[in-house]
Amino acid sequence: MNNPIIAEVTRGPIVESRHHGAFVVCDAKGKILVSGGDIGSPIYPRSAIKAFQCLPVIESGAADRFGFTDEEIALCCSSHNGEAEHVRVARSMLQKIETDEACYECGAHWPVYREAAYELVRAGEKSQQVHNNCSGKHAGMLALAKQLGADHHNYVKPDHPVQKAIAAVIERMCEVNLTNAPRAVDGCSVPTWGIPLQNMAIGFAKLCDSNEAANKRIIEAAKVYPFMIAGTGRFDTNVMEAVPRLFMKTGAEGVYCGSIPHAGLGFALKCDDGAARAAEVATMSIVLKLDVWSADEREKLAGFQHETFKNWRKIEVGELHGMSL
Amino acid sequence: MNNPIIAEVTRGPIVESRHHGAFVVCDAKGKILVSGGDIGSPIYPRSAIKAFQCLPVIESGAADRFGFTDEEIALCCSSHNGEAEHVRVARSMLQKIETDEACYECGAHWPVYREAAYELVRAGEKSQQVHNNCSGKHAGMLALAKQLGADHHNYVKPDHPVQKAIAAVIERMCEVNLTNAPRAVDGCSVPTWGIPLQNMAIGFAKLCDSNEAANKRIIEAAKVYPFMIAGTGRFDTNVMEAVPRLFMKTGAEGVYCGSIPHAGLGFALKCDDGAARAAEVATMSIVLKLDVWSADEREKLAGFQHETFKNWRKIEVGELHGMSL
Repeated sequence: MNNPIIAEVTRGPIVESRHHGAFVVCDAKGKILVSGGDIGSPIYPRSAIKAFQCLPVIESGAADRFGFTDEEIALCCSSHNGEAEHVRVARSMLQKIETDEACYECGAHWPVYREAAYELVRAGEKSQQVHNNCSGKHAGMLALAKQLGADHHNYVKPDHPVQKAIAAVIERMCEVNLTNAPRAVDGCSVPTWGIPLQNMAIGFAKLCDSNEAANKRIIEAAKVYPFMIAGTGRFDTNVMEAVPRLFMKTGAEGVYCGSIPHAGLGFALKCDDGAARAAEVATMSIVLKLDVWSADEREKLAGFQHETFKNWRKIEVGELHGMSL
Repeated sequence: MNNPIIAEVTRGPIVESRHHGAFVVCDAKGKILVSGGDIGSPIYPRSAIKAFQCLPVIESGAADRFGFTDEEIALCCSSHNGEAEHVRVARSMLQKIETDEACYECGAHWPVYREAAYELVRAGEKSQQVHNNCSGKHAGMLALAKQLGADHHNYVKPDHPVQKAIAAVIERMCEVNLTNAPRAVDGCSVPTWGIPLQNMAIGFAKLCDSNEAANKRIIEAAKVYPFMIAGTGRFDTNVMEAVPRLFMKTGAEGVYCGSIPHAGLGFALKCDDGAARAAEVATMSIVLKLDVWSADEREKLAGFQHETFKNWRKIEVGELHGMSL
């Protein structure tokens, strides 16, 4: 099975590196508009489906019970930089659900954004679980545990009511049965299930249905608070700030998923080798295949399809670009 | 042209990501012992050939004139972490050649090793050019400029005597003519020329010839000071500390080159997608194909062929391994 080249790096007169991958855009009925490569084998969506992990937090009534704001809902769907603003919002969520940071089961790591890490170092602080890029999602899971009346301990385990509720949402949205799906442990200790790209795209197409209040809430929250989805200098944030009609979310190992609500379309992409850089620019290539953008949006998306590499003295040395798929 | 799979990542029951690449091991006459994929098209060796960039520093007499130690020669061949020890050695080189840090043309960046960056932050310092992972190599280039009686300004440019001397060494070692070779600018602003993997491997096989004093000096320096070649937690350093009879050097975008002096062999590998993680474990796969190791060395190399992925709570979540090529 050979997936097509989705992105390449040039330096001087030649191509230096190449990335292969598979991708699909479809509507909520599964009608495919764009596709390439193997979209039928299971891949791990990782953090790209945080929106689906957030859905039961809203649908269960937890978000309303604890008075989560849209900013907090956005952080619940995010892989954030661990910047001060992200930490503030995560702590606000924990306070609202009267839960301590020690209840987190995501693990601690230094903020992804180096300047945020340096800020902590300057302040003589250490990395904590709240700096974990998934701390918003995990605050949502702790809220869901409370709402379900479940002991929060082991809320990351597949047999905990929180993860069972999430699995049920994924099954409904993506039209899959996870019972026998490949299952692994994600970086933040929660389960990640192997799902075909085609089904992930269907799920994100269904997320466009604004008649479902929870869907609408997530899409609107991301639109208003794109900084909460990622942070300074991050691709998702930059693209969504420039083109608010696009919802997109990165996942580890080269995954992107997203929704185009005004067109009722969902998409999913996986770079074979796991490279985020390729998944980013190639996602621009696939959404640009669609005749659903204004001229202004199209120009902005095309801008994100290319990245100029500069070296430490700001000399242009090469380029990364998504292929014309 | 489809290069074979050289490394893969597994998570739970399935393969999550795959890396393709090309590789070759040969002797100084170009006799191929192991190979796979396209070894005839030019690729940029990037930092993997720092040994060849160091050779003229020794051959010209610059290293002796300025009294460079073996530790300094090792740093001259390195892509270091910017740790205090690396910075100390780079500054010693500059002092010996009576040159100021401001003469560097590599550009400044924060130490690659996060803890070293945090040390700087704690001390209230900023990143400088001496922290650039190439600062040892550039100290060597500044020494070479002095030895050649050339103005050091623009020593990174292709038409400067320093880079011309380096190009001549690469042509001699790799048996290539660089006149019409693809040429680009590396991360540290010096030229990088496109060279087929086959020729890079020949060059590293010739580096094994200890009758050439400069070759011997580099190989011995790396053997005694593997920490200077990379640093804490780095693959090159860990492997060379465990198996001193192997000389290996990483280059950006998934390149590895190296020498097995006791067997008179050289090798070169490029991961198609530029992933360092794949190049690391796959390099172990190709050297393990050779019947040139003791049982103890073989066991250690096999250990480096696999890397267990643990998440932030130290739970084993997956594995990276080089394929049995």
